[in-house]
Amino acid sequence: MTREQSTNTLADLIEPYLDGIERDLKQWLVEPDAPAELAEAMRYCVHGGGKRLRPVLVLMSCAAVGGDPRAEPPRRCAAAVELVHTYSLVHDDLPAMDDDELRRGRATAHIRFGEAMAILVGDALLTRAFALPATLREPPGGPLIAELARGAGAAGMIAGQVADMGLCTVPEDIEGLNFIHMRKTAALIRAAVRMGAICAGADDSTLDALTRYAENLGLAFQLTDDLLDVVGTPEQLGKSTGKDSAGGKRTLIAETGIEQSRRRCTELTRQAVVALRPIGDGAGPLRKLAELLAERTH
Amino acid sequence: MTREQSTNTLADLIEPYLDGIERDLKQWLVEPDAPAELAEAMRYCVHGGGKRLRPVLVLMSCAAVGGDPRAEPPRRCAAAVELVHTYSLVHDDLPAMDDDELRRGRATAHIRFGEAMAILVGDALLTRAFALPATLREPPGGPLIAELARGAGAAGMIAGQVADMGLCTVPEDIEGLNFIHMRKTAALIRAAVRMGAICAGADDSTLDALTRYAENLGLAFQLTDDLLDVVGTPEQLGKSTGKDSAGGKRTLIAETGIEQSRRRCTELTRQAVVALRPIGDGAGPLRKLAELLAERTH
Repeated sequence: MTREQSTNTLADLIEPYLDGIERDLKQWLVEPDAPAELAEAMRYCVHGGGKRLRPVLVLMSCAAVGGDPRAEPPRRCAAAVELVHTYSLVHDDLPAMDDDELRRGRATAHIRFGEAMAILVGDALLTRAFALPATLREPPGGPLIAELARGAGAAGMIAGQVADMGLCTVPEDIEGLNFIHMRKTAALIRAAVRMGAICAGADDSTLDALTRYAENLGLAFQLTDDLLDVVGTPEQLGKSTGKDSAGGKRTLIAETGIEQSRRRCTELTRQAVVALRPIGDGAGPLRKLAELLAERTH
Repeated sequence: MTREQSTNTLADLIEPYLDGIERDLKQWLVEPDAPAELAEAMRYCVHGGGKRLRPVLVLMSCAAVGGDPRAEPPRRCAAAVELVHTYSLVHDDLPAMDDDELRRGRATAHIRFGEAMAILVGDALLTRAFALPATLREPPGGPLIAELARGAGAAGMIAGQVADMGLCTVPEDIEGLNFIHMRKTAALIRAAVRMGAICAGADDSTLDALTRYAENLGLAFQLTDDLLDVVGTPEQLGKSTGKDSAGGKRTLIAETGIEQSRRRCTELTRQAVVALRPIGDGAGPLRKLAELLAERTH
């Protein structure tokens, strides 16, 4: 029986990867010469109980195309992507941005350490993320860093946050929401999946297939997040709910209703799974992950 | 007559590099798909009349050890270092940090575009900085990015800002101030000089000499900044003065007096120049730069 067949929950599927991811994050997060107070704040933010979806995607994608997810290149990429994700949460939670006091059931960084430290911790996490693959030689770090920067940068995740904050013009329809979701969430997920595959030496057509998987998965993931914000409870999510509509933010749910959003989520997940067909059996865990993510309640 | 002998001012020495640096920054700053509003804010921050000292150091260091500063690797590194410097100014100016409204004689980013956009612009500039050398193959981008991340990160520039903000424990004496200056300013200048030399294929002993040059230059540069904050005028500096002492920040000047600070600046500059001896004639512009920086009035 393969691992895929024996897992019926998201936690089961992700669990085998978690120890290694946590160990690598601990080992690689802080340079020895960093001030203790800064190091403590960085650890608080990184070891705060996230799902580790993005690093798992790096490792699963590497394995899907025949690479060894226990090798150092995919592990460094996995840690790097999680640091980018964590920095984005720290900065998004700031008073000038989403002004959130609770994250994963704990005080956000600026509540715990003050606003100046939260800004600097985010900056330090982002910088460290790029340092981790920089030392790789085979495959070389440069192209991996280019992928990460593209997913995280001004045409990727940051563009999504700029749009989400209403700081740039976006059409007030499904296309506009798609624009935001593709950048805010799918861009970094795409980088994660591509980095894992690049570590395994994937060819261009395989990278294309995995890119389509990642983009559909990312859109479905953000849509599920928005759905849970409407129908979930704070206890399930470890953060305040109803925030999107309360804050006047447009969400696909508000635009089209809960049922239609659920159908769109199912369709995106189906497209993600279809995209994996050329990859073969190795993509089993990626397929299962897409299916289980669409069913999650937190 | 060499360029070095014909230049008697800092502006004269830097001028021949400026057109290329500005052109490269324009060309490489923004990805085509970035939202127009974000791109505009990024351009406002980058093209705001800085001295371009750090990119000039990359190019001079490359030339000092026999490399071609017009080649793409040093030019990408030069632009990358300037983007890291610019991001640090944007974030340092934020209300939660130094709370500055004026920078280079213009409104700071959060005054002009709002606090959320300023945070995101800083994030985008930092991300873009790492993307620029990532595409290089010879020399490969990875080691160059590792240098940049070390200079900018939690044991480098960010540590300096953490210390400067009083967010970590630092001895209240000259050693403590040295700790702050080495990180806040010298660490990125060291990265600039080393990246330029790495582009030219410098050996380890040459890199060591240039590292000593850069560290002494960086300390002298920050000390001159602090002196100008005490004795300069807002018109000369394009920003408010007397801010360090008014804000209760410790500076070497407050600790030891203006005359002793000037002597220390002279001694650091001398040590920077001495460090260049093994490099030979090619280091002329680097030497001249150190001497002229110590004499500047803005």
